[in-house]
Amino acid sequence: MEKVHELLGYHNIKIIQHDDMFSFSGDSMLLAHFVNVTNKTKKIIDLGCGNAPIPLYLTLKTKAKIIGVDIQSQICDMARRSVELNNLEEQIEIINADIKDIYKTVGTNCFDIVTSNPPYFKFKESSNVNRNDYLTIARHEVKIDLDGIIHEAKKLLNEGGCLYMVHRAERFSEIVQCLEKYRFAIKRLKFMYPKKNSSEALLVIFEAKNNAKEGMKVLPPIFMYNEDGTYTDEALEVFNFKKQN
Amino acid sequence: MEKVHELLGYHNIKIIQHDDMFSFSGDSMLLAHFVNVTNKTKKIIDLGCGNAPIPLYLTLKTKAKIIGVDIQSQICDMARRSVELNNLEEQIEIINADIKDIYKTVGTNCFDIVTSNPPYFKFKESSNVNRNDYLTIARHEVKIDLDGIIHEAKKLLNEGGCLYMVHRAERFSEIVQCLEKYRFAIKRLKFMYPKKNSSEALLVIFEAKNNAKEGMKVLPPIFMYNEDGTYTDEALEVFNFKKQN
Repeated sequence: MEKVHELLGYHNIKIIQHDDMFSFSGDSMLLAHFVNVTNKTKKIIDLGCGNAPIPLYLTLKTKAKIIGVDIQSQICDMARRSVELNNLEEQIEIINADIKDIYKTVGTNCFDIVTSNPPYFKFKESSNVNRNDYLTIARHEVKIDLDGIIHEAKKLLNEGGCLYMVHRAERFSEIVQCLEKYRFAIKRLKFMYPKKNSSEALLVIFEAKNNAKEGMKVLPPIFMYNEDGTYTDEALEVFNFKKQN
Repeated sequence: MEKVHELLGYHNIKIIQHDDMFSFSGDSMLLAHFVNVTNKTKKIIDLGCGNAPIPLYLTLKTKAKIIGVDIQSQICDMARRSVELNNLEEQIEIINADIKDIYKTVGTNCFDIVTSNPPYFKFKESSNVNRNDYLTIARHEVKIDLDGIIHEAKKLLNEGGCLYMVHRAERFSEIVQCLEKYRFAIKRLKFMYPKKNSSEALLVIFEAKNNAKEGMKVLPPIFMYNEDGTYTDEALEVFNFKKQN
């Protein structure tokens, strides 16, 4: 069943979700909050946008044009209706397409920022999942893998443009190697731990600059939950982010 | 001037230092504390041991044989005297040699653990430093660089053996690429922040396994100082580590 949820606590940004499909997650919010926009940011593209939480969140930070791309038509339909519900049709465009072909439609070397909350898990033929299932496509690398997304981001970004991604911390070595392959340099990096006493980080969130030299800053970690299960102040800052200017 | 310091608060492990040379640092203690030893750990080698803080600390955790190697003869002399002062000649051997040649003396593929607190900074001909100065050699990659140390560690470690290293967090991308080149996989990883409100991590401490598959755990960060400048409880745990068994 479809429901309209609040994307952000204080802003009346609404987002349509469906119980049987992939819900927007805190991960997307973390990523969108982490993105650095400037006055020079004119074009942003979100690869694998789902029901568009990242494009919707980014409208709080920038007036840049934002394109969201997703291979799943029903999810794109929902995303478009969320955009309309918030009267953001002027700023956000949703395109139903394969990420692998999108540069043919939107052009190469013309984006300042590429964002992506990609499928986190490797796909094996032996994986016991339904390849056509909405959730499978959102979570497993059935349609595109890590290398593929970074390769497409490379085509889309202008010189010095930035790729922002959230991924599983355990895959960080592989991420570094893929970024090196396509001549990105990680500039900022943050690990997310569910709790202060979590035994390991769950997610990594990073900014990688196109054709840049090394010089990584490992920023302070973010902890999501207090011991008592409530959100930490830093998590609430992500979720209740105020509109800029 | 030479002085005898306590290496660890509660254990009467003494270490000889010289005002004009490189002092042992908290970095070495962090690394030694991070090392995982088991009953099967029989041979350990510390590359660039300086005045031997890592070998001395490791005697609190293991009865394994420990070799310390350093290219600087005066520092090796001091390290040997520290070993004698603690009556640890049976367990620790200090060898004055170039890391690049040490496998010819100690053998290949025979160590369970290699540790290193290497020079942190890249050396350029234009660097305004004295190449023969003790501090320069300890801090700058004059005699050996990151790739070189990982290459030598590869020769020394047995199948499944582990390299433990502490390094500058900003060089972490390069570290990951070097480890991949020599077929190591990072297994455990920790970032050190000077304070809770530090804007970025200063150091990374990691365990990389020889010829292993991926599967990185990013452990909780360590913060060294409280707001008031006193050590945090987790830093004190490193410095006041109790003898095992």
